[in-house]
Amino acid sequence: MLSKNQLKLINNLKSKRYRSKHKLFMTEGVKVIKEFLKSDYELDALYTSVDIFSAEPDKYFLIDENELKKISCLSTPQIAVALFKIPADEVQVPTGNKGLKLVLDGVRDPGNLGTIIRLCDWFDVQELICSSDTVDCYNPKVVQATMGSMARVKMSYQELETFFDKNTLPVYGSYMDGEPIYTSEVAQDAVIVMGNEAQGISQETSRYIQKRVSIPQFGKAEVESLNVATATAIFINEFKRLSFTEK
Amino acid sequence: MLSKNQLKLINNLKSKRYRSKHKLFMTEGVKVIKEFLKSDYELDALYTSVDIFSAEPDKYFLIDENELKKISCLSTPQIAVALFKIPADEVQVPTGNKGLKLVLDGVRDPGNLGTIIRLCDWFDVQELICSSDTVDCYNPKVVQATMGSMARVKMSYQELETFFDKNTLPVYGSYMDGEPIYTSEVAQDAVIVMGNEAQGISQETSRYIQKRVSIPQFGKAEVESLNVATATAIFINEFKRLSFTEK
Repeated sequence: MLSKNQLKLINNLKSKRYRSKHKLFMTEGVKVIKEFLKSDYELDALYTSVDIFSAEPDKYFLIDENELKKISCLSTPQIAVALFKIPADEVQVPTGNKGLKLVLDGVRDPGNLGTIIRLCDWFDVQELICSSDTVDCYNPKVVQATMGSMARVKMSYQELETFFDKNTLPVYGSYMDGEPIYTSEVAQDAVIVMGNEAQGISQETSRYIQKRVSIPQFGKAEVESLNVATATAIFINEFKRLSFTEK
Repeated sequence: MLSKNQLKLINNLKSKRYRSKHKLFMTEGVKVIKEFLKSDYELDALYTSVDIFSAEPDKYFLIDENELKKISCLSTPQIAVALFKIPADEVQVPTGNKGLKLVLDGVRDPGNLGTIIRLCDWFDVQELICSSDTVDCYNPKVVQATMGSMARVKMSYQELETFFDKNTLPVYGSYMDGEPIYTSEVAQDAVIVMGNEAQGISQETSRYIQKRVSIPQFGKAEVESLNVATATAIFINEFKRLSFTEK
């Protein structure tokens, strides 16, 4: 049984304001919830219509499918909804100078951020740094789109200035008029910066870019741009193929 | 003013059954509609809350924002909705043996298909062939996600058997356990096959694959797979970079 208070709390977590207030976020579906249960995230409550999880009894609630529908964000609810605690802001670990890091400068679409987090997991990106105006990673749409990858990728929100001031790795930025990435010299240890869906990299962030790169366009001139998650995939691939072929 | 019949027709077009019956599909937003107006697609009707288009008077309807809300599929309606005619199935043009072709074997998510169509436009993929169980490209979510690219990409739905029986290009298929694409010999003129989001390439289609390729995974073993649109981006990029660097 779901109490009125529980119902209200869960539905409130769909908005960032309440997520910040309660320091909680929601996840859905057996697979995604199991990934989070295995991770360092701390469970707050698990609501399920099928008794297939193991969790502490005071955090575990069997509900029926009608109740599930009331708390799910999905058009087809998937068995369970779980609340996890948003970790406290970590003390900034000094930025190392090994591997590939990705900086997002104002990415706004939850689906794009979710796809990018999944990419970072696949390609073992060392660190994902998001500007403070990037969409909240605890947004339910982001959490779902990551398919559990969020439980593994090391990410932080910060003023990009703070990050770049400490950074010693070469910084590549994605621009429509950059040098073609195929003929650019790329490095295994580097920072890639991707900009906002409509505006690209902001002027303030541009100051830190050392090399402007682009994905060559083969089609007709009318095509405006690639989706930012797609472009990120191609850039990360171009940098990681190097570490593969030089292994 | 929107008549009851117009309202009913437009809302019906959200379902495939009615799109097939009426041979019409809907598009939204100034930019996307303008792309379709420039293309070979034939306009059936244009409903707009701002008088900024030029179209034949009997196909052009000024509506107010409340009416727009009633016909839009978007959470934030974007000025206009237009209906275009679904072209009659073309006589199958004999398959040429130049350039890159992409085959989708049962891709189900509208957002994925939309992203893939946009990719084909950017990378000038010669032909996009979809199995009959691939999501309908006239689904409003697909049309929106292509951002107008659908107006330019040559695509068809057909039994894949029919396509492969005529095809003479080498056929590469995406598999989790394929040879790493970085060390595979790729060709400028080739067919790439991508499978369903959950099941991958079907058994029937597997018979036609000559080379099984994969995108190497760098992260921890738990990561299940890349999103199919992301993986398609990386594969197409790997094939097209060849034609760029050998130019």
